[in-house]
Amino acid sequence: MRLAFFGDVVGKPGRAAVLDYLPGLRRDLSLDFVVVNAENAAGGFGLTETIAMDFFQAGADCLTLGDHAWDQREAMTYIQREPRLLRPINYPDAAEAPGKGAHVFVLDDGRRVGVVQLQGNVFMRQQLENAFHHADRALDSMPLGVAVDALIVDMHCEATSEKMAMGHYCDGRASLVVGSHTHVPTADLMILENGTAYQTDAGMCGDYDSVIGMKKDNSISRFATQLPGDRYAPALGEGTLCGVFVETDDRTGLARRIEPLRMGGRLAASVPQV
Amino acid sequence: MRLAFFGDVVGKPGRAAVLDYLPGLRRDLSLDFVVVNAENAAGGFGLTETIAMDFFQAGADCLTLGDHAWDQREAMTYIQREPRLLRPINYPDAAEAPGKGAHVFVLDDGRRVGVVQLQGNVFMRQQLENAFHHADRALDSMPLGVAVDALIVDMHCEATSEKMAMGHYCDGRASLVVGSHTHVPTADLMILENGTAYQTDAGMCGDYDSVIGMKKDNSISRFATQLPGDRYAPALGEGTLCGVFVETDDRTGLARRIEPLRMGGRLAASVPQV
Amino acid sequence: MRLAFFGDVVGKPGRAAVLDYLPGLRRDLSLDFVVVNAENAAGGFGLTETIAMDFFQAGADCLTLGDHAWDQREAMTYIQREPRLLRPINYPDAAEAPGKGAHVFVLDDGRRVGVVQLQGNVFMRQQLENAFHHADRALDSMPLGVAVDALIVDMHCEATSEKMAMGHYCDGRASLVVGSHTHVPTADLMILENGTAYQTDAGMCGDYDSVIGMKKDNSISRFATQLPGDRYAPALGEGTLCGVFVETDDRTGLARRIEPLRMGGRLAASVPQV
Amino acid sequence: MRLAFFGDVVGKPGRAAVLDYLPGLRRDLSLDFVVVNAENAAGGFGLTETIAMDFFQAGADCLTLGDHAWDQREAMTYIQREPRLLRPINYPDAAEAPGKGAHVFVLDDGRRVGVVQLQGNVFMRQQLENAFHHADRALDSMPLGVAVDALIVDMHCEATSEKMAMGHYCDGRASLVVGSHTHVPTADLMILENGTAYQTDAGMCGDYDSVIGMKKDNSISRFATQLPGDRYAPALGEGTLCGVFVETDDRTGLARRIEPLRMGGRLAASVPQV
Ligand SMILES: [Fe+2]
Ligand SMILES: [Fe+2]
Ligand SMILES: [Fe+2]
Ligand SMILES: [Fe+2]
Ligand SMILES: [Fe+2]
Ligand SMILES: [Fe+2]
Ligand SMILES: [Fe+2]
Ligand SMILES: [Fe+2]
Repeated sequence: MRLAFFGDVVGKPGRAAVLDYLPGLRRDLSLDFVVVNAENAAGGFGLTETIAMDFFQAGADCLTLGDHAWDQREAMTYIQREPRLLRPINYPDAAEAPGKGAHVFVLDDGRRVGVVQLQGNVFMRQQLENAFHHADRALDSMPLGVAVDALIVDMHCEATSEKMAMGHYCDGRASLVVGSHTHVPTADLMILENGTAYQTDAGMCGDYDSVIGMKKDNSISRFATQLPGDRYAPALGEGTLCGVFVETDDRTGLARRIEPLRMGGRLAASVPQV
Repeated sequence: MRLAFFGDVVGKPGRAAVLDYLPGLRRDLSLDFVVVNAENAAGGFGLTETIAMDFFQAGADCLTLGDHAWDQREAMTYIQREPRLLRPINYPDAAEAPGKGAHVFVLDDGRRVGVVQLQGNVFMRQQLENAFHHADRALDSMPLGVAVDALIVDMHCEATSEKMAMGHYCDGRASLVVGSHTHVPTADLMILENGTAYQTDAGMCGDYDSVIGMKKDNSISRFATQLPGDRYAPALGEGTLCGVFVETDDRTGLARRIEPLRMGGRLAASVPQV
Repeated sequence: MRLAFFGDVVGKPGRAAVLDYLPGLRRDLSLDFVVVNAENAAGGFGLTETIAMDFFQAGADCLTLGDHAWDQREAMTYIQREPRLLRPINYPDAAEAPGKGAHVFVLDDGRRVGVVQLQGNVFMRQQLENAFHHADRALDSMPLGVAVDALIVDMHCEATSEKMAMGHYCDGRASLVVGSHTHVPTADLMILENGTAYQTDAGMCGDYDSVIGMKKDNSISRFATQLPGDRYAPALGEGTLCGVFVETDDRTGLARRIEPLRMGGRLAASVPQV
Repeated sequence: MRLAFFGDVVGKPGRAAVLDYLPGLRRDLSLDFVVVNAENAAGGFGLTETIAMDFFQAGADCLTLGDHAWDQREAMTYIQREPRLLRPINYPDAAEAPGKGAHVFVLDDGRRVGVVQLQGNVFMRQQLENAFHHADRALDSMPLGVAVDALIVDMHCEATSEKMAMGHYCDGRASLVVGSHTHVPTADLMILENGTAYQTDAGMCGDYDSVIGMKKDNSISRFATQLPGDRYAPALGEGTLCGVFVETDDRTGLARRIEPLRMGGRLAASVPQV
C-alpha cells in the first residue's frame, strides 16, 4: 500500500500547498491513503469544518490535530460527527474529550488502514495520559496484518527522545510512526529493526521563510525582548507541501520504503519515483 | 571557503564515526574549517581532554559544547587552556563561567573564521542570558566580511521556533547558523534571504538505532513507567557521521551552498559533490 | 479524631525534629493518626528502611513519598513489604510501579483511616497520570463516613493552583487535603465549604536556615552562575518539626478544626491547645 | 520604619480588600511605606491606570507587577510616566522594556526607601536575565543604611528554592525580601542571619474560596479534562487583604520584626500589635 503523511498545515500558504499539490500527487504516486495534520490550518490556530472539507476534497483521507486541537472551538462539535478527524488519543478517559484518537478506515477495495494520534508528555501544554500505554492500547485493538492492513501513528510532541522512543516502542506493530508538532522536517527517515517506517518529524506545510510558519519579525522580537508582541499570524510567502511517503508490504503491513515528499516553496523538492 | 559542522557526538560510535570519516572528508572536500559539537562525546555526557585531542587530530578545528558542557568536570579546567573549545557564550557575565563562547581562528593562509556558541532559553536545563542579545554582542565583535571571512553560529537548544528565529536574526551577519542539541538532523537546509546558510539541527554523530544515541530499552522503559532506570549509556551499533557542508563566498563571507553531510550507520548517506 | 501531617523531612535535622518532638506531641495532643512525608529523609534524597523504622517507632502511622520516592533504590523493594509506606498513586496502571498509593489503616479501636498520595502534573519531574481522576478513583474506593472514619490526601506538587484545585475537588470527600513538596509551610489553613480541612503546603521538617532544607551557599551559587556545584547536602542547623493538626467529627469524618503544628528551629512555634 | 507589603491583588475582591482596609491600617499601624503587588488587579490580568490611582489614593506608595505586567497593554505606556509603578528589573538591558524595576522613594520626612522587583528564572513564562546578578546590581546602587533607609525586594517567582536562595543572597543588604506570584501566603516569616526580614510569599489579596483567586469550577475542570474552559475570571466572594508587616531599625535599615498582616475573608486574621 502507498501511504502519505503531511505535517502540520500552517495558515493559508500551508493550505494552498495541500490544495495545489495533493490531488496531483495522489494520482501520480497512486497513493492509497493520505493523512494530514491540520492543527494549525486556521490562521495558525486549530481547524474549521470548512477547511477540513477542502482537505478531504483535495485527497486527504484522515486529518489529525494535536495540542492546538481546540483553538477553534467549533472543532469540539465538528469532531463528534466527523470520524475522519482525530485528536490525541491519550486524554484521560474520564475527561470524555470530544472525538476519538484512533480510527480504522476501510478503503474502497476493502483494505483497512488504522490511524492513531498520540500526544507526548514532555514539554507540552496539556498534560495528557502516558503516551506509551495509550499506544499499547490502541495498537492492541488493531493488530497490524490482522485487523488492519496498514497502521499510521502520528506522535505529536516536542522532544526528539520521546518520538524516537515511541518509534521503537511501536516497531513491528505499525507501518509508520511519524512525528509532528515541531514544524521542521527531519532527515532521519528509516525502517526500524522490525519493519516500521520512522521519521522524527514530518515538518510543516507552510511558508518556511518564517518562524515555524509564523511571521518572523514578531517572533524574533518576542524572543529578544520577552515583551508581548503583535498577534501571531502566519507568514504569507509560498508554502511548501512537506511530508513523507511510505510503501508497505500488503502481506504484513510493514514498510518496504520510506522517502521524503516535498514540493514547492523554499525547501529542496523531493518526490519519490514510483 | 568550505566549512563543515558536525552535530553532537554521542559516545563511542559517534567518536568512531568522526575519527574514521573526518580525515578523508577533510581532504576530499577540501574543507577549510571544521566544527564538531562534542557535548556528549564522553559516554554520552560531556567531554574529556583525551577525546578532544583525538578530534583535533582527526581534523576538527573547533569543538563546541552545550548544556552538557560540564558533565565531565575536567572540562572546566581544560577549557581554560584550550581556546579551540567553546561553551555557550550567554552565561551571565558575572558568573565568570570558565572558558569562552566565541573565538576567531586564523587559518594558515591568514583567513579568519569566527565561531560562536549560543544556548537557547526555552526548555533548557540551565537558564542562561538572552541568546539574542548575546548573539548581537558576539556578531558585532566580529563583523562578517570585515573582521572575519566566515562566521559559524552553533545555536544549541530544543525549540525549533527559537532556532529559526535565531537563524533569521543572524541572517546576513553569519555564514552559517546551525542548531544542535536535539540529536536529529533536520531537512530544512536553506540559504536565508540575506545570505546566511541555515539548518535547524545538524543531527548527532552516533548510533541512530537508539533514542537520541542512547540505548533504547532503558529510555523506553523510563518513558513508559516514569520509574528510574539503568544508567544511561550510549547505544553501541555503527555510528553515523552527521553534519552539514557550507560553501561561502570569500568576498562576503555569505553562503553559496549548503548540503547535508552524512556517512555510515543507518541514515541515508549524503556527500556533496565538489 | 485527631490527625497530624508533617511535611517533607529533610536530612538529619528533619529526622531529629521528628524523633525528638513526635513522641511527646502524640501523647500531649492525643493524636490518633500521624502521617509523615519522608521523601527527603535520607540525606535529602529518598528514604531508607532504617529511617522509616525510626519514624514508625517515634509515632508515625504512615509515611508518604513523592517525586523523590526512589532516590534510594532500596525503597523500591522495601515498599513492597511495607503497606504503611505510600508513593504517589497516579503512576500509570500498566507501569506496575512498586508499592501502593493508598491504604486504609485500622486503628486499635477499630476506626479506619484512609491515606492517599497524589502527585501533581504541573512542573514535576515525572509525568504521572491525571491526579484528579486518580483522586476520584481513590476517594470512591473509600467513601468518607462509610468505609473510612477519616481520610487524608497528600497532594505532592509544585503549583499552588493545582493544589487549591485539588482541595476543592476533594472537598466533602476527605478530612484533610494537604500539600507537600515545596518545603515551605503556607498560612492558608482553612476548612473548605463542604468540610474538608485544607493547607496548600505543610512545609518541611528540617533546618530553615537553608534553601528548602539544603545548604544555602551551594544553592545560591548554582542559581547565580548556572554552573554545577557541590553535591547537594542538607543544612545542619536545628530542625523545625513542621506540620498541621486536624480534628475531625467522628460522625462524618469532616474537619472541625485545622491548626499549624510547629516546634523547634527558626520558625515561630505553634502547638494547638487541646 | 514601618513597612508593609501586600501580595498579588486579584480582581474586584482583592481591590476591595485593599481599598477597605489599607487606609485604616496605614493610620493604626503608623505605616511609613506601603508596597502592593498589583499584577492581577484588573480582572486577574494586569493593571490599569484607574486602578493604580485608587491604590495610591488608598495608601500605597509603590506598586509592583510581575509576569502579568503587560496583560493590560495600557500599562506599557502608563509605567513610563509613573515612577511609583515597577516591573521586574531583570529584562535584558537591550530589550528596553518600558518602565523601571527599581526606584528610590523620598518620604516627607526625608527618609528614603528603595524598592526592587525581580522575576525568577525557574518555571516562569518569560525568560528574563539572571535574577541574582540583577539583585547585585540593584542593591549595589542603593546601599542600605547609606543611600536608603529601608529597602524592599519583591521576588516574583514560582519556586520556593529560588526565593529562599534570593532571601539569603540579599541578607544584610535589604530590609525585606518577600516573594509574590504563588498567591498563597507562607508561614515562614523570619529575620535572616544578617538582619533581613524574609517571607517566601506574601500571598494574594483576593477571595481564597477559589483557585489562586480565580473561579474554582473552571480551574478544576481544566485540570481534570485538559480541555479549554471558560475564560478565567476572579472568584467574587469576600476578599482577604494579605501581606506582611516589617519594622526596621532606622540606624541600619535592617529588620527588627516581621509579622503577617491579614484581614477579612477566609484566612485567619492577623494584625500586629504596635
Ligand atoms: Fe502542536
Ligand atoms: Fe503544529
Ligand atoms: Fe544539549
Ligand atoms: Fe547533545
Ligand atoms: Fe517533592
Ligand atoms: Fe520534598
Ligand atoms: Fe505572577
Ligand atoms: Fe500573581
